[in-house]
Amino acid sequence: VTTLADIGEFPLIERLRGRLPRASARVAIGIGDDAAASEIAKPGELVVSCVDLLTQDVDFTAATPARAVGRKSIAVNLSDVAAMGARPVGVLVAIAAPKTTQVEWVESLYDGIASICSEHDVDVLGGDCSGVAAGGVTIAVTALGAARREALVSRAGARVGDRLCVTGTLGDAAAGLEKIARGADPASDDPLVRRQVDPIPRVAAGRALGEGGIATAMIDVSDGLLADLGHLLDASRVGARVEVGKLPLSPAIQSNRFEIRRLALTGGEDFELLFTIRPDDEAKARAACGDVGMTVIGEITSTPGTALVRPDGTLLPPPPRPGWSHFG
Amino acid sequence: VTTLADIGEFPLIERLRGRLPRASARVAIGIGDDAAASEIAKPGELVVSCVDLLTQDVDFTAATPARAVGRKSIAVNLSDVAAMGARPVGVLVAIAAPKTTQVEWVESLYDGIASICSEHDVDVLGGDCSGVAAGGVTIAVTALGAARREALVSRAGARVGDRLCVTGTLGDAAAGLEKIARGADPASDDPLVRRQVDPIPRVAAGRALGEGGIATAMIDVSDGLLADLGHLLDASRVGARVEVGKLPLSPAIQSNRFEIRRLALTGGEDFELLFTIRPDDEAKARAACGDVGMTVIGEITSTPGTALVRPDGTLLPPPPRPGWSHFG
Repeated sequence: VTTLADIGEFPLIERLRGRLPRASARVAIGIGDDAAASEIAKPGELVVSCVDLLTQDVDFTAATPARAVGRKSIAVNLSDVAAMGARPVGVLVAIAAPKTTQVEWVESLYDGIASICSEHDVDVLGGDCSGVAAGGVTIAVTALGAARREALVSRAGARVGDRLCVTGTLGDAAAGLEKIARGADPASDDPLVRRQVDPIPRVAAGRALGEGGIATAMIDVSDGLLADLGHLLDASRVGARVEVGKLPLSPAIQSNRFEIRRLALTGGEDFELLFTIRPDDEAKARAACGDVGMTVIGEITSTPGTALVRPDGTLLPPPPRPGWSHFG
Repeated sequence: VTTLADIGEFPLIERLRGRLPRASARVAIGIGDDAAASEIAKPGELVVSCVDLLTQDVDFTAATPARAVGRKSIAVNLSDVAAMGARPVGVLVAIAAPKTTQVEWVESLYDGIASICSEHDVDVLGGDCSGVAAGGVTIAVTALGAARREALVSRAGARVGDRLCVTGTLGDAAAGLEKIARGADPASDDPLVRRQVDPIPRVAAGRALGEGGIATAMIDVSDGLLADLGHLLDASRVGARVEVGKLPLSPAIQSNRFEIRRLALTGGEDFELLFTIRPDDEAKARAACGDVGMTVIGEITSTPGTALVRPDGTLLPPPPRPGWSHFG
C-alpha cells in the first residue's frame, strides 16, 4: 500500500496525468506548465465559471467509492454551468487529502474525473494535490464553460405568467441518501442510490434551453426544489404556484415507502434543471430536454413566495425544512 | 464571537460578497447565480487557467494574519498566470474551514483577497465555503487570465545560447520563513518576513515579457531556483550554467547571518520570474521588468542539468535539497 506520504508530489502528478484523457484540440498548453492555455470561448462568447467544494463526511463518506466521488465532484459543477444555459468546456481540480490516503484511492478518484469529463467533451485543465496532517478529503472543482451573451440564463429572468418547469424526476437523490443511511451499499446499483452517488448533470438540456432562447430563468436543484425555487423567485422578484400533484416522480421512488412528497419538495442533489418559460414555448422546451424529459409543475405569480397547491385546489403548508445548508 | 457553525451558508456568503470590490465591466453575471459569466479573453486570445491549494500548517499557520493568507492565496496564482506571459483577469475561491472558525477570520481573509484583486484589476468570479468537522483551513484558488497565442510563454521554449534571467531578488522568502521559525512575528514589517507572508506576484513583468515576445521560456520561482530551473530545463530539453556570484540578493538578506547562497539557490516562494531570452534581447527584457529589476544569472547550454559556477570558474556541488515538495 502506497500513501501520499510515501510518494513525491511530482511522481504523484505524473501518475494522475497518465490517467486523464488526451486534451482536446482546444488546448494549446495543457497540464504540466505554470498554467494551461485553451480556447474556452469562441468569438462573441462569454466565459462561464463556478467552483464547488466536496468535503468528506458532508458530501461523501469513506465508504463512497472514490470513482463516484470523482465523478460527482465534476457533475455538480457541470450542472451549474448547464443551469446558465452554457456548454461546459474545462475543469480544474484541487484535492487536499490526509497524508495517510492511499495513492490508489486518489487514482480511482481521477479515473472517475476522467470518465465523466470524456462523456461531456470537457478538458481537465489543471490540478493541485496537497497532503494534509488531519481531517478528511476536500475536493474543489472549478468548471469553465462558454455561451453567447444572449444564450445565458440567469436566475433573475422569470416573469409573471411564465410556466415553471423541471427536467427529469425529483426526490430520487434524497431517497438514495436515506437508503444509504439505512444501510444500503453506496456501490449498489439501486437506481435511487445511483442518483445520490453518481448524479447525471443535465448538460445537453441546459445548453439547448439557453441556446434556443427558451428558458427565461434557470437554476439547478442542488439544495431541494423549494430552496432552489426560492433563490430563483428572490432573484426574479416574483412568486410561484406549484401544483404538488404534478411533481415528476420516478418509478423507483414510487415503489418505496419513503415520504415521497417531502423528498420531492425538499430533497437535495437531484441536479435537475428548474426553469421558467413563456407559456407558448412548452413544445420547444420539451424538445430541448429530449429524453431527460420535462414537466410543467406550476407558474410564476406576482405573489411573493411559493404557494403549494394540492390537486383539490387547497393549499399545502410548506414543509418545515426548506432545503440543505452546509452550516445547518 | 460568531463561528461558521453559528451562521447559515447564505448569510455568510452575503457577508463575504459585501466585502468584495464591485465587479469590473467585464462581468455580465457576477457572484450569486449558478455561475458567473464574464469576458475573460478578447477575440484572438486564449484563456489561461491554473489552481493552487494553500493548506494550514503547510502554507500558513494559525498565527499568520488571515488577511495575509487571503492575499497570498491569490498572489501564488497570479504569479502562475504571469509566468505564462498572460494577464490575470479573474479568480474563484473555495474555502474549507473547521466549523469552529470565527466568521471574522474568514472576513479578514476575504479583505485580503479583495485588496490584492483590486490592485491587479482582477474580478472575484465565484466562491464556495464549507464547514468541516476536523483539520485545518484549506483554500483552493483558481485564476483565469488571457493572452494571445503568440504571447504565451511555456517552460519548453529555452534554446542553447539563451540568457537565463530572474526578476527581483532570491532567497528572501525562505529567509523570512526561517525568521518566523526562530520566533519572528508573521505580522511584523521586517522585509524578509513580508516577502514570505505577503509575496508580490510579478504580474506586469510577466505580461510585458510575454506580450513583447521577449521571454522564450518562463516559470515562477515557487519551489526554489534550482528546482524550478530544473522544471524549465526538463521541459526545454536543455541544460544551464548558473553563475552563483550573480544571484540577485536583497540588502535585507545580505544583512542577515543566514546561509545566503543556499537560500538563494533552494529557497521557495520568492515568486520571482525565471526566464530565458535571446542574447540580443537583454535591454528589452530589462525594460519589460521595470522597477522590479532583472538579472542575467547564466545561460542555456546543451549539457543536461545545472552547472553552478563560482566567480573563480570552479564548479559548486549542488546543494542536497533541490527544492520544496508537499509530500517530502
